[in-house]
Amino acid sequence: MSSGNSDFALHCPLPLRDYPFVTLAHGGGGSLTNQLLENVFWPAFQNPMLAERHDGATFPTDGKTLAFTTDSYVVRPLIFPGGTIGTLAINGTVNDLAMCGARPKYLSAGFIMEEGLPMETLWQIVQSMKKAAQLAGVQVVTGDTKVVDKGKADGLFINTSGIGVVEVSHPVSPRNVNPGDKVILSGDVGRHGVAIMAVREGLDFESKIETDCAPLADMVMQLIEAGVSLHCLRDLTRGGMATALVEIARSAKVRIHIDERQVPVTEEVRGACEMLGLDPLYVANEGRFVAFVPAAEAEHALSILRAHPLGRGATLAGEVVERDDRGAVTLGSVIGSTRILDMLTGEQLPRIC
Amino acid sequence: MSSGNSDFALHCPLPLRDYPFVTLAHGGGGSLTNQLLENVFWPAFQNPMLAERHDGATFPTDGKTLAFTTDSYVVRPLIFPGGTIGTLAINGTVNDLAMCGARPKYLSAGFIMEEGLPMETLWQIVQSMKKAAQLAGVQVVTGDTKVVDKGKADGLFINTSGIGVVEVSHPVSPRNVNPGDKVILSGDVGRHGVAIMAVREGLDFESKIETDCAPLADMVMQLIEAGVSLHCLRDLTRGGMATALVEIARSAKVRIHIDERQVPVTEEVRGACEMLGLDPLYVANEGRFVAFVPAAEAEHALSILRAHPLGRGATLAGEVVERDDRGAVTLGSVIGSTRILDMLTGEQLPRIC
Repeated sequence: MSSGNSDFALHCPLPLRDYPFVTLAHGGGGSLTNQLLENVFWPAFQNPMLAERHDGATFPTDGKTLAFTTDSYVVRPLIFPGGTIGTLAINGTVNDLAMCGARPKYLSAGFIMEEGLPMETLWQIVQSMKKAAQLAGVQVVTGDTKVVDKGKADGLFINTSGIGVVEVSHPVSPRNVNPGDKVILSGDVGRHGVAIMAVREGLDFESKIETDCAPLADMVMQLIEAGVSLHCLRDLTRGGMATALVEIARSAKVRIHIDERQVPVTEEVRGACEMLGLDPLYVANEGRFVAFVPAAEAEHALSILRAHPLGRGATLAGEVVERDDRGAVTLGSVIGSTRILDMLTGEQLPRIC
Repeated sequence: MSSGNSDFALHCPLPLRDYPFVTLAHGGGGSLTNQLLENVFWPAFQNPMLAERHDGATFPTDGKTLAFTTDSYVVRPLIFPGGTIGTLAINGTVNDLAMCGARPKYLSAGFIMEEGLPMETLWQIVQSMKKAAQLAGVQVVTGDTKVVDKGKADGLFINTSGIGVVEVSHPVSPRNVNPGDKVILSGDVGRHGVAIMAVREGLDFESKIETDCAPLADMVMQLIEAGVSLHCLRDLTRGGMATALVEIARSAKVRIHIDERQVPVTEEVRGACEMLGLDPLYVANEGRFVAFVPAAEAEHALSILRAHPLGRGATLAGEVVERDDRGAVTLGSVIGSTRILDMLTGEQLPRIC
């Protein structure tokens, strides 16, 4: 991309200024839809596949195994400390692919806009997606836009689906989790959920809490390249670390034990959770994952993660203790007691991603 | 699938009856989310890839070229004569893949539900998707559900993305459209849009107008297998036949001439359009496409389509007349006059798909 594009990205282009808000006509498939595509979406994600302007993108494969995933994003507010719904949409799907042991390659992006969405907000979000895609090394190769009448959506919903190339020779899956496996946690938990809640509740902390939203694929690829046997990977989104572990324990039919002292939570997040009545273990993250690896490889895996800018806070958080047909997660607390972590019925934090 | 499943599909299963409406907790990633997945989504789309219950699906390729596409569906009402938002979501994405010359294989499905959506409505829509997927020969291999608070969506939005295997050796693209190419239309136009508008406006016609929503891939595969050179394909959705042709004419830098007498419109649709003040050429379809083929192959292509249950009404609707840098579509009317078809600024019919 030429350097001239950086100027272009500073402000919404002229034809859009004639329409400071998204209108229903922007969703009709006519000339205003085209104006929006030509001024906002195509320049942000430019690549040869998207440039075809066809109903879909095509790409050759060389006989590899591919991974395919999808996620819709409905976070409120659309822009928050450290990110936007757009950075979530890129990184969330990148991370789901990484959790399949896949190198993320191609993304689709579907936008459902509410009539009246400020054009500048849309512009800012699309620019944040462009940056996030570049950072994660993925291309948005196909997309879709729809507009619904005022009051029938909440500003903007985004769906991203993604395709990646699987880089592991065995499937990364709860089925491969075995007693004796160690559980590695890639960093401190709870920041994303607390960052969102703080904005919603109008809370002002001494030091601003930012989302941990980040692409995890690079760390996972480094683990694979180093030959670490990744039995299972899971990013800790909706429902937080506790829910992710319970899901895995149930699928794998094992009991997982976690040492609470090895689950880092920053002072700020802990304080905010107390104030908001939240348990940080159930709070959503957007840049954290757990890896299940054989005990003999745990230290090696840990050293690789800690050498990565996004994994400096990685810990050896627990282990798979035994087979358990119903699946369970136990937590050894700081004071020495043990409690069972279960799924919540709903969630502490609606519309967190 | 065992035949016992047909009973299962007749009514919403018991645990869901305890929750006659979707609640925010169904979107929280906890046990209610799991209940919804286990009772509604997974049984409908069951296949080994989805059964992994992982963040994404993986599948091997044997070095083919793949096609990738996405679409969000926001149609109102959710259920209408001849289809639901779910049948649209399956067929729409199947058709976008077919328009790339690809055999549709794998779909993702992302559901954004509004708090308060009746569980029976969701159930009915998911069952219609199951049927549509079976009919189109595709598998829903990965998915996602989100719930937003009441008043922040409009019942249900669905995103489907799809992957298909490209079955043509040259790209199917507007770039390959040349003067002399014939334009084949697969059937009568305007039914989907009119069916939706009739429901919205509470109109009652003598014979009920049903959507034309249908999977187009089988017809396209038959054309490919017969060796027809498909220069370009486009399904006639938002903006109707006119908008699709203008888009192609502009991309290909050609003038396309259409003979109005060769654009079938049923009596019922024509009458309804007059009553509603709509031009059937701009009304959305969900089971119609145009194919650009060399003149020498047009009759062959036409005979293949006409032998297919979904293409009985196919016609030779027009041709590419000449190069034209600005791109244009002209229409020779029934009475012998010629007019230019342009894009509309917005659309006649919002939220039609």
